[in-house]
Parts: sequence; structure tokens; C-alpha cells
Amino acid sequence: MEKVEDQNPQQEEDQVVNPWEVSAKDGGKIDYDKLIDKFGCQRLDQSFVDRVQRLTSRPPHVFLRRGVFFAHRDFNDILDAYERGQKFYLYTGRGPSSEALHLGHLIPFMFTKYLQDAFKVPLVIQLTDDEKCMWKNLSVEESQRLARENAKDIIACGFDISKTFIFSDFDYVGGAFYKNMVKVAKCVTYNKVVGIFGFTGEDHIGKVSFPPVQAVPSFPSSFPHLFSGKDDLRCLIPCAIDQDPYFRMTRDVAPRIGYHKPALIESLFFPALQGETGKMSASDPNSAIYVTDSAKDIKYKVNKHAFTGGQETIEKHRQYGANLEVDIPIKYLNFFLEDDAELEHIKKEYGAGRMLTGEVKKRLIEVLTEIVERHRRARAAVTDEMVDAFMAVRPLPNMFD
Amino acid sequence: MEKVEDQNPQQEEDQVVNPWEVSAKDGGKIDYDKLIDKFGCQRLDQSFVDRVQRLTSRPPHVFLRRGVFFAHRDFNDILDAYERGQKFYLYTGRGPSSEALHLGHLIPFMFTKYLQDAFKVPLVIQLTDDEKCMWKNLSVEESQRLARENAKDIIACGFDISKTFIFSDFDYVGGAFYKNMVKVAKCVTYNKVVGIFGFTGEDHIGKVSFPPVQAVPSFPSSFPHLFSGKDDLRCLIPCAIDQDPYFRMTRDVAPRIGYHKPALIESLFFPALQGETGKMSASDPNSAIYVTDSAKDIKYKVNKHAFTGGQETIEKHRQYGANLEVDIPIKYLNFFLEDDAELEHIKKEYGAGRMLTGEVKKRLIEVLTEIVERHRRARAAVTDEMVDAFMAVRPLPNMFD
Repeated sequence: MEKVEDQNPQQEEDQVVNPWEVSAKDGGKIDYDKLIDKFGCQRLDQSFVDRVQRLTSRPPHVFLRRGVFFAHRDFNDILDAYERGQKFYLYTGRGPSSEALHLGHLIPFMFTKYLQDAFKVPLVIQLTDDEKCMWKNLSVEESQRLARENAKDIIACGFDISKTFIFSDFDYVGGAFYKNMVKVAKCVTYNKVVGIFGFTGEDHIGKVSFPPVQAVPSFPSSFPHLFSGKDDLRCLIPCAIDQDPYFRMTRDVAPRIGYHKPALIESLFFPALQGETGKMSASDPNSAIYVTDSAKDIKYKVNKHAFTGGQETIEKHRQYGANLEVDIPIKYLNFFLEDDAELEHIKKEYGAGRMLTGEVKKRLIEVLTEIVERHRRARAAVTDEMVDAFMAVRPLPNMFD
Repeated sequence: MEKVEDQNPQQEEDQVVNPWEVSAKDGGKIDYDKLIDKFGCQRLDQSFVDRVQRLTSRPPHVFLRRGVFFAHRDFNDILDAYERGQKFYLYTGRGPSSEALHLGHLIPFMFTKYLQDAFKVPLVIQLTDDEKCMWKNLSVEESQRLARENAKDIIACGFDISKTFIFSDFDYVGGAFYKNMVKVAKCVTYNKVVGIFGFTGEDHIGKVSFPPVQAVPSFPSSFPHLFSGKDDLRCLIPCAIDQDPYFRMTRDVAPRIGYHKPALIESLFFPALQGETGKMSASDPNSAIYVTDSAKDIKYKVNKHAFTGGQETIEKHRQYGANLEVDIPIKYLNFFLEDDAELEHIKKEYGAGRMLTGEVKKRLIEVLTEIVERHRRARAAVTDEMVDAFMAVRPLPNMFD
């Protein structure tokens, strides 16, 4: 039995995790075990990592083997079907609320790119410009502009154009997609969305109307140009766990309208430089490394703002070692330093006090600078024509090759 | 100042009038004066009838000169602009919930056809198949089928294809139309729609999402293929007064998103054969004359089911005369007998007891049979190709000629 307990952020909670707010009580850390229990998803244990490696004949992605993607719903069903020779499709997305993405934004896309390559499956990417227009009080035109700008960052992650359809809601809502929106909306009461998302009576009806928009890319019939006649195709959604409420709702509705429940594979939040108390905040530029940051910016931000577990003095540090549990450089390296042996070495030396905070930060600055520089080069190569091509409503004849 | 008092049918009310329910207390008559006062619209007085006659150089439609269209919002602004040489466009619609229309359904279309001809203006007709799918628990496919069937009845009313665009929501929602939906939804709180439409927390979110769909055909930018570059074009909506809540909401929002408020011209309800206590009911076939009824059906229904104001015995009738206030044959003749002199004659003779109920019914049967037969012939001539042509998304280069 799937647990579908509602979370209402209006109520007093130890921690609040929904698509618009991630916060722990008294500024503490998010308790992911509690979250798994509350949401009713499953922990992604080592057996999944091993199985993915076996099925795809390639090393598991660093985000998989280090537990960045740590929870799932029915991922086993996806793998069972895959093992029987049945493909699936991937669905992920982004709400285009800001010009530049930060590293936390890239995580689902980096991971999705790996999944697309490893499983050789098609991918749909939803840009929820309508959502951001409604939540952030952006104009329609500004939301659409940001969607296109963000599409460039997404394309820069290396997606295969022969397997990838990127769409903005303002462009694509209509037709089969709108019909599915109506089918979903019919199955969800207002009280239900209040329970799931915590809307109040003073929220505008655009918010109440939106959950079906994010729900229906989970159903292949929403994309007749891609999946016509493939209504049985399963969907796997890689996302951060704050998006779980949308898909809890979607999974509740799916069988009632004759569709498979989408499967999910869900990530931790990428912590702010100031410490692991939630997601990074777009409103505080010093809380995050942006893909537009220069090498100098990165160096400044890491050196000036990264919260560390190093001790106050070198003497104490040598004596007690760093507290790795709270150390942001270590956490960031855990996401982005691909070499397992080097990471183990750093953790061991730093934890024992033999390596200083400055040295760890220096390595982190190198790693981040390389990622950001690589991204910058890739994004600079993305032309408007490429954006048009990824966003064209077209069949993808080789999407399962 | 426009009055925008909310009506909540959950509360105890003398009468309930909203898009889904029309009922007076204890089965009494709808008090239209009270409704005008409650809704905050204006009565359409004789000066409007005269002005329309003068501006269009043709006799006012029977529905206009007999007060069937009895209320309005800003119709004077439409006429002022028209007098200055500025055209407008018409918007009306239908929720396709049943196979066959009854005469009450035809009233807004007959009147709209007159307005289109008299003012020489374009017209958009919305078929809310999405609404009916959500409210009536019809499948998407069945709603779409009914929309097409109803389109044939609408086309049979004689609309000018060079000035008329008919669309179904399932076909047309998207693009500029969807952008306007989002703009409207941003401006309306959940509490507001509860106040206007009386939704409850157990209603599904499809209902909460729908009002913007019916709102946005009021804005020319929702139809870029028709009105591109004509954002200033005013909209006039002929409809029955039960649709007023949608447009009260629309008018409240319009200036906040940079659009003109749509103007309205609103009709009485066409009474049921059993008496004037509300609208006709699609669930009771004997409460209404359908456009599919045979001459025999019409004769049977009028003779058997029409509530009359005639007296119990011929003697009493000759003595007291008929009570015209409650007499359905007289009310129906008031809608459909075009000859003013004949109608006056019948009312005078019948009211004085010199004419018997059977004679009035006989004349009504002739009048209705002729209308229904004419409609049947016109509808039989409507081909699928004509439906496709009316519903094609296309420019209408001669729409203002």
C-alpha cells in the first residue's frame, strides 16, 4: 500500500518540504528519513545501484552511488519492465524563475542526462513558465523569455536532441495535453490540493489550477507526436524530493483515468554555501554557485561564505579534525568530485585534522570552476536555432535506439 | 460604480441563479428585478431598443422589443463606440451536454444571429466541452462529439461563415488563449470564486479552474488569427442571465490585465412547459420543446403539458378570462410569434375570455412547428465539411464588412 499522507505546511511541522518551501525547524537540517516516512516513498538502497549498473553495463552515476538520489517510488517496476525489454521515458522539468541557474538546479538535469544515455530512452522536459508567471508575478513575456534562457542551460547539459523534447507550458498546453489536464482535475478535490500543497482561500485560482499541468507529462498520451499508440509506456521522473507532492497526487489519480502511475527517483537538496538547512535561495546570490559565476566569484564565495566543520584554530584542528557532518566543502565534493578514492582520501585526512579547511576549499574551487567553465562553454555553443530544434513539436523516430 | 455582490447558493436565498441552478423559493417565479439588483446589471429600457433600431436601420428583433433580452452591462458603451464608427465583436457559447437542443437553447443564438446581421460584426462561439466533461461526468470523447453535434444546430441558426468562428475548448485552449487564462486566474482568489459560484472544498479543482476558460473569449487577444493588432476591440456577450457570474468575474479582472470589460446583453429564462419556475430541464423531455421534436410531439406536449391560465370551465373562462401572467402558451407566443398585432389580439381576446385555451394552443402549435421544421431543414443541410469550415482556425478578412 502506498502511503499518501498529506502534508499541510499551514500546520505546525518539524520541517516543511513542498515545491515552494524547504525548511527545517529552528534552522536545523532536513531529516530525510522522516521525509521518506512522511511522504511514503522508498529509500533507494545499494541493491538498486548494483542493479542499474548491471542493466546498463556502465558505472553508476556519482549521484547514484553516493546517495544524492536517495529515494524512489516504483523504480523497481521500471527496472523490472526494462529487464523484460520494455523501454520507458523520462520526464523532468524546471520552473524558469531566474536568469541564471545555480548548481543545485543542474543536479536533476545532470542525472537525467546520465539516465538518458545509460538506458537509451526518450526524455520530455517541462518548463513551467505558466507556474512562475503565477507564483512570482512575472509577466507572460518575461516568463517565456526566462524559459528560453533556461532551456539553453538545460541543453548545455548535453541532452541528445534525437531523444529529447523540451516544451514550455505557454507554448504547449492544449490538445491532448489539455484533455489530460481536465481528466486529472476531475479527480482531485479542492480539499485534496489544500492537504497536499497547503493552499489557502486567499491564494489565487491559478495556483489551484496548476497541479494538473505538472501532472500530465507523466502520461504518454500527453505527447501524441512522440508516443502515439504507446499508451502503456511507463514514465520515470528524476527530481528533487520537494516535487514529490505533485507526483503523489498524480500517482493517486493515474489508475482512475486508466494510466500507469509514474515512477520517481528523488534527490536530496543541494545545500546552501552557508550550511545544510534547506535549498539554495535565488534571492541571496552568496548562498549559491551560479553557472554564470566567474572563477573569481567561485573562489570568493567558497572562501568567504562556505560553512565548514574545521576547528577554530590550527592547533585544535590538528587535534580534533574537521566535523565532516556539517562541512559544506565536503558535501559539495561529495556531489561533484567524481574520483571516489580522492574523495575518501580527503575525508579521511580532513576528518583526522591532517588536512586543513583551506586545502579542501582549494580543491573544491578547482572542481567547481571546472564544472562551471565546462558549462559556460557548452552554453555558449547553444544557438537559438538549437533551442528551436529541441522545442519543436516533432516525432523522434530514433528515440528508443 | 458597478455592483459586484457575490452570490453564494450555499446560503439561504429567495432564489438561486447561477450557471448550474436556476430556482425560485417554493417553486415560485424568478424575480428578475431582484436579480438585476443583486447582480448589479442594468435594465434594458425602451431607449436602447429605439437606439438600436436607429443605429442599425432595421426593426429591432422580437426578443429585443418584447423584453426577452431585458438586462445589460455597458451596452451603452458598445453603442456609443459603434456610433463613433468603432465596431465590436460578439461572443456567445454553449455547454454541449445533450444531443438535442430545446427552444430555450436557441434563444441566445437566434438573437446573436440578428445582432451579427444588424451590426455587421464578427462572432466567436465557445463550445465548453471541457466544462461539460467536468460537470456532467462525460468522457472527453463524448463531450467532443456532443460539441460537434451542437455546432450543427448552431450553424443551422444561419450564422455568416465569413464572420463566425466556432471553437471547442478541447480543440482550441492553448497559445494566446491559455496565456489569457493564466492572466485571469492570477487575479481571482479561491475565496472569490466560492463567493461567485458557490463551490465547496469537496468540488474538484476542474470546477475551480474553469471560470477563466469562459472568461477569456471576452478579450480579442485570445483570438490572434482574428483580432491580431486589434486589442482595443470591444466585446458584447449575448447570453441568458444565469451566465452573469462568469462575466461579473471577467469584468472585475479585465482592467487589471489591461483589457476592456466585456459588455453584456442578458435574457430571461425560457420557461418550462409546466410553468415559469425556472429554466427547462434537459432531464425531463416533457418540460421542453426540442428541435428534434416532430409535429406530433409538439402537438402532444403543448396540449398535454403546457400550463395555462385558462379557467376550469368554459363558463368561468368566458366570465373571467385567462390569467395571462401564468399562461405558458402566451409566454411562448411572446417569444416566437413575430406579428405584434396578432399577439396583441390574442392576448386581448384570451384575457377577456373570448378566446379559449385550445385556440391559443392551436396557434402556438403552428408557430412552434414552423420554427422547429425550419430548424430541422436547416440542420439537415449542415454537412461535416461546414462544421469543419466554421471551426477552422483561420483569419476572417471580411468580418467587418
